[in-house]
Amino acid sequence: MKVVALAGGVGGARLADGLRRTLPAEDLTLIVNTADDFEHLGLKISPDLDTVTYTLAGIENPETGWGRADETWGFLDSLARLGGPTWFRLGDRDLAIHILRTSRLDSGLSLSEVTQHIAASLGIRVALLPMSDDPVRTIVGSDDGELPFQEYFVARGCQPVVRSFRFEGAEAARPAPGVVEALTRAEAILLAPSNPWVSLDPILAVPGIRDLLRSKPAVGVSPIIGGRALKGPVAKMAAELGLPVSPKTIAAHFRSVLSGFVLDSADAEEADPIAQTGLRTLVTNTIMRDGASRAALAAEMLGLARALADGAREP
Amino acid sequence: MKVVALAGGVGGARLADGLRRTLPAEDLTLIVNTADDFEHLGLKISPDLDTVTYTLAGIENPETGWGRADETWGFLDSLARLGGPTWFRLGDRDLAIHILRTSRLDSGLSLSEVTQHIAASLGIRVALLPMSDDPVRTIVGSDDGELPFQEYFVARGCQPVVRSFRFEGAEAARPAPGVVEALTRAEAILLAPSNPWVSLDPILAVPGIRDLLRSKPAVGVSPIIGGRALKGPVAKMAAELGLPVSPKTIAAHFRSVLSGFVLDSADAEEADPIAQTGLRTLVTNTIMRDGASRAALAAEMLGLARALADGAREP
Repeated sequence: MKVVALAGGVGGARLADGLRRTLPAEDLTLIVNTADDFEHLGLKISPDLDTVTYTLAGIENPETGWGRADETWGFLDSLARLGGPTWFRLGDRDLAIHILRTSRLDSGLSLSEVTQHIAASLGIRVALLPMSDDPVRTIVGSDDGELPFQEYFVARGCQPVVRSFRFEGAEAARPAPGVVEALTRAEAILLAPSNPWVSLDPILAVPGIRDLLRSKPAVGVSPIIGGRALKGPVAKMAAELGLPVSPKTIAAHFRSVLSGFVLDSADAEEADPIAQTGLRTLVTNTIMRDGASRAALAAEMLGLARALADGAREP
Repeated sequence: MKVVALAGGVGGARLADGLRRTLPAEDLTLIVNTADDFEHLGLKISPDLDTVTYTLAGIENPETGWGRADETWGFLDSLARLGGPTWFRLGDRDLAIHILRTSRLDSGLSLSEVTQHIAASLGIRVALLPMSDDPVRTIVGSDDGELPFQEYFVARGCQPVVRSFRFEGAEAARPAPGVVEALTRAEAILLAPSNPWVSLDPILAVPGIRDLLRSKPAVGVSPIIGGRALKGPVAKMAAELGLPVSPKTIAAHFRSVLSGFVLDSADAEEADPIAQTGLRTLVTNTIMRDGASRAALAAEMLGLARALADGAREP
């Protein structure tokens, strides 16, 4: 089964790892959010692509959700002594991907090409695509005004109360090479348990992508479990937007593009109300601690997608 | 006594350190070669400025003659794994100066301004000036054709046989802000024991600098001691250019701008022949191992300059 997964950072990376363990490499395409990309100290940084890349290569830092395992901090210590900005924590090993990407982009390669070179050098065999080679930038509307995503997320530690989100450049962005082809060819599309507002919505905002999802068995999974998010500000954002901090908020958010939805056993009582909105639901363990639990969730989502595809083929 | 020293890399850095220990900070200006600056991986690297900066801050690597003490190599290891170029060895701590410089230059600051900010942040109190804010690039004419300096020096390990040198951009380069003022105000000018062809000649090639030297007591010192160079390719270059590998080659090279010349006790027999060319000579220990020997050489050179100034004032 040809599968495409839409992915943000940690949740996207872990589901991608589960899918990689479950599917032949040639059947899997990952489309990754690039709207939290930004430029810092002249370096072009793609946090979600890096988290997915590091995770697929098995060199991610499992504690932080960003950066490299076995990291050292000589650069940042030295930068601090020189009076440079240290709010965005760049590790010594992590720096290589940013410097190499920036250098190759500046030499005229596209983000897709650079991403592919880096993935290949790390032995990653699945197709890893940025959502677009054109710049799209998440702007967070907050009680403190509009903030570029990394300023909201890292510099201000998600403290400002959010009101809205917009994706600067999305209207003019074209899907990266291979994105439309992969979605067209896909027999199932999975939405990773990434932040709906700042990880998945930017991907869906790239013209053409949303419509391609609607024509396929598409399965989502809640990043909110038992009223909390495993990682990141999704629960805090839901509350600030006046929405229930629960899977039904996620299911409703993606209702127009999904046909199936997976939620955690901790939230089993929400399965029926969500099913009543017309989504086929599946209740299972969705926490991805290790390779086995990542593969298990991937298999459950693929199973639901397969059932949806079979159902669609029934008379 | 107001003093200006012209400096390249290691020899320049060590004499600068000796001068710093000998003179009040406000009396010392260092003018540093920037013709071996280059761009690598998008980073703007100024090797001689960095060596002088690190040495004055007491954080240089005393083994290599470049880079930082207590260095780590996570970045370079990681870059190698990503398939990036590793021939130019960038340490984790060292990276901070290159990234900060590049970022600040790209934001519109001049090399002089960036150099000053960095020096100030490291507590350096003497005036540290690049020879020019305009790009000047040493091109080595060799039996293998013309080579950009860092390709000759690092990538090819000084192996190609040299024939000539030229300094691209020198004719159009302006002395950096403060250079002409410092030279005009100077009561003594010292040429560090740096490579004459690739460290000091580029400084003298910046229009205006050579003429200002001629009007002052200017003292040089041989980087060749006992037929060898303590560091770098100066002995190899002299031989390849068909010149004696000895202090007299250095003295002759700078004859038109110098009035005094210091040579090592190991080469005492050359003092008379050099004196016969009209230079006042001084024989002493010129090897700068530690702070004390650096300060001692600085004091000897300043003493000779003072004697020359007094002599010039005699009727």
